[in-house]
Amino acid sequence: MSGKLTLVGAGPGDPELISVKGVKALADADVVLYDALVHPELLDYIKRSAKKINVGKRAGKHSYQQDEINALIVHHASQGLHVVRLKGGDPFIFARGQEELEYAVSYGIDTEAILGISSIGLPGYYGIPLTRRGINESFWVITATTRNGCLSGDIALAAQSTATAVIFMGLKKLQEITDIYTYYGKAATPLAIISKGSLPDSRIIFGTAESISRAPALAQIEAPAIIIIGDVVATNPDFYEAVRNVISQPQYQQIQL
Amino acid sequence: MSGKLTLVGAGPGDPELISVKGVKALADADVVLYDALVHPELLDYIKRSAKKINVGKRAGKHSYQQDEINALIVHHASQGLHVVRLKGGDPFIFARGQEELEYAVSYGIDTEAILGISSIGLPGYYGIPLTRRGINESFWVITATTRNGCLSGDIALAAQSTATAVIFMGLKKLQEITDIYTYYGKAATPLAIISKGSLPDSRIIFGTAESISRAPALAQIEAPAIIIIGDVVATNPDFYEAVRNVISQPQYQQIQL
Repeated sequence: MSGKLTLVGAGPGDPELISVKGVKALADADVVLYDALVHPELLDYIKRSAKKINVGKRAGKHSYQQDEINALIVHHASQGLHVVRLKGGDPFIFARGQEELEYAVSYGIDTEAILGISSIGLPGYYGIPLTRRGINESFWVITATTRNGCLSGDIALAAQSTATAVIFMGLKKLQEITDIYTYYGKAATPLAIISKGSLPDSRIIFGTAESISRAPALAQIEAPAIIIIGDVVATNPDFYEAVRNVISQPQYQQIQL
Repeated sequence: MSGKLTLVGAGPGDPELISVKGVKALADADVVLYDALVHPELLDYIKRSAKKINVGKRAGKHSYQQDEINALIVHHASQGLHVVRLKGGDPFIFARGQEELEYAVSYGIDTEAILGISSIGLPGYYGIPLTRRGINESFWVITATTRNGCLSGDIALAAQSTATAVIFMGLKKLQEITDIYTYYGKAATPLAIISKGSLPDSRIIFGTAESISRAPALAQIEAPAIIIIGDVVATNPDFYEAVRNVISQPQYQQIQL
C-alpha cells in the first residue's frame, strides 16, 4: 500500500465553497493537516478514524513551521496513508502549495492537487468588479508581505498603472501602501478592504488611498483581509455614501466612471 | 412567490471543481442558463422538471447576445422562478457577472452569487507557481481581447514589470503579445500555454516569448487557453526539455532561477 498527498483548497471562508472533489478527498483521508483559517464545519467531512492535525494553531499556542508540516506529510504518507493538506483559499495562490508538493515528490510520494476558490473572487462577490468595460482591463495581485518582511516594490508599479491592485496580507502595511499611492499622485484612488469575506461576520469598508486611515470602521477590520485599490471600487453603489464622512478633499469627485 | 437569480461559477472545466453551494443551487433551480464551456455532467444536478437553456451554443448555431440573456433572466425570474446562470470559471473574473446581477436588480429581482474556481488557479495545478519566493511577488491578470477588439495596453506594462502575466483570451493574439515582450527586450522570457485546463484532454506547451510560435504542439492548442509569461514558468521541471527544440538562440540560459 502506497501513501499519497492531496493538497486541497478550502476556499475563502464559507464552508460550502469547497469543491465537490475537495469533499471527496477529505472523506477518503487517513490524516488531515489543516490551517487555522479553515472553517470547522469542513472537518465534519473527515471520517472518524482519521487523524486531524491543526497545523496553524493561533492565540499563543504552538504553530507548526513549514519544515515541520513537510515532515508530518512525509511521515504519514510513508506509512501508506492518504494525507490531505487542507489550506485556505487556493493551494497555489500565495500559499506555498508548490513547495509542499515538491517536498513530497522528492520522497517518492504520489501527489495530487485540488484547486480552491481564491480570495481573488471576493471583490466581485461584494460588488466590486476587478475589471469593468470602459474602466480597465486587468488586475494585479500582490502579496504585501515579502520574504524579508519589506513591502513589495510591485505596489509602486501598480500605483502607476491602470490595473486594479488586489493586495493580500496587507492590513498591517496599510499606511505604507496608501503612502505610495499618495506619492504617485493617486491619493484620490478609491480603495476597499474586505475582511473575512464570504463568512457571516464579513465586513467591507470604503475610502480613498488618502482617507482610508480615517474610516471609522477600520478598527473593526480583522485578518484575513484583502485590499482593493482602483477606480472600479467606486462602481460599488455604496461607495460614495461610505466615503462622504472620511473624505477631506473634494478630489474623489474627479473620478471618472 | 418571488423569483430569484443565482449566478454560479462552474469552475475551470473538471465538473468536480464546482462548489458544494453551486451544486445545491443547481438542484434547486427552475431554469438554468448555461454557457458553452460548462461541462455536460454538471447538468445532471438539475432536476428533471427544470428548463435548461444553452445560451452559448457554438459551431455556427445561434449564440445568445448579452441583452438576450439578460431578458431571459428577467422573463423567468419575474414569473417567480429560481433562475440559475451557470458560467465557466468564476462569475466575476472577466465574465460580466456584475452586469447580469445589476440588470436583474434593476427589475427588483433578488440576486445571489456563488463563486467559482477561476482559471487563475490552473498554472499552479500544472506546476507553474504564479509567484515564488526569491523570484517575484505578484501576478498580473489581463484579458487580451478588449471592448474595441484591440490588444490591452496593459500587456506592454506587464512586459516591463517583474510580475507574472496571466493572459485570458489571448490565443488569437499570441504573436502580437510575444512581439511586445520582444520589443521590450524580454524575448527570452519563459512562456507557457495551458489549454482546456483541469480536463482529461488538457495540454500544456512551453517556450519563450521569442520561440513559442515555433513550438510543434502549438497547432493542437485550442480555446479555452491561458497564457502565462514570466520567469516562474521556468521553475516547471519540464520547461528546459520542452524548449530545447524550439529555442533558436541560447538566450534562455541567461534566465536566473
